[in-house]
Amino acid sequence: MLVLILLVVQACTPQTETEVLAIRSVLEEQVEAWNEGDIEGYMQGYHRSEGLIFTGGKNKTMGWDDALERYLKSYPSKAAMGELKFEDLHIELVTPGAAFSTGEWWLYRTNDTLQGRFTLVWRKVDGNWVIIADHSS
Amino acid sequence: MLVLILLVVQACTPQTETEVLAIRSVLEEQVEAWNEGDIEGYMQGYHRSEGLIFTGGKNKTMGWDDALERYLKSYPSKAAMGELKFEDLHIELVTPGAAFSTGEWWLYRTNDTLQGRFTLVWRKVDGNWVIIADHSS
Repeated sequence: MLVLILLVVQACTPQTETEVLAIRSVLEEQVEAWNEGDIEGYMQGYHRSEGLIFTGGKNKTMGWDDALERYLKSYPSKAAMGELKFEDLHIELVTPGAAFSTGEWWLYRTNDTLQGRFTLVWRKVDGNWVIIADHSS
Repeated sequence: MLVLILLVVQACTPQTETEVLAIRSVLEEQVEAWNEGDIEGYMQGYHRSEGLIFTGGKNKTMGWDDALERYLKSYPSKAAMGELKFEDLHIELVTPGAAFSTGEWWLYRTNDTLQGRFTLVWRKVDGNWVIIADHSS
């Protein structure tokens, strides 16, 4: 166990570890906001920019405002939003100011359960990690 | 028209432009290799690493070797590979050593046409841009 811990510590430089934890914390805040029915809070994880790119299946949409509008339309109530959970989460720092994360998303609702995978591209903007591209399927 | 050109030039620093062109050139080489029936050549665009992550729809596979094996199995002939084409291609430098690209892929074959979208995460490794994560749907 100690060997394992040492190996993990060795693999992560302190800076990498700090950045990965910072990104994980944004994701956790997003999940929390979603599960409180707060779509605007959830959207705080995304770069508030016209350049934000959402890819879902075969479609692409651009811009933070359009993304928010689409979410509000697709999930008009707390019941429709259900309970969001991420699984198999992997966060990887590409350079000190860029990262990506990938994992499984689950949406548990009263009448159904939705599930898929996502890949997010992150940029550190003014000291804060924000998602600049989201591909979910 | 001149104003437009000046705006575009202003938005792209020479370094950004060079990196974007370098990534575009890797993608062009991949398309060329694919259309010659050369899957191993196509795979040169990907980081030859156990850490390479492929996400397709609801599945994830890890590692360059597994990805190659899966491609060879799914596309056993030049006819099965068809003709690959990218559309609506967007390449964005996140930091000097990290980028992402997103676009539409088309596969024209004798009996059908496949189509979807992709998001690729790029890292500059030893001076060369390689894909470290691929999400296609």
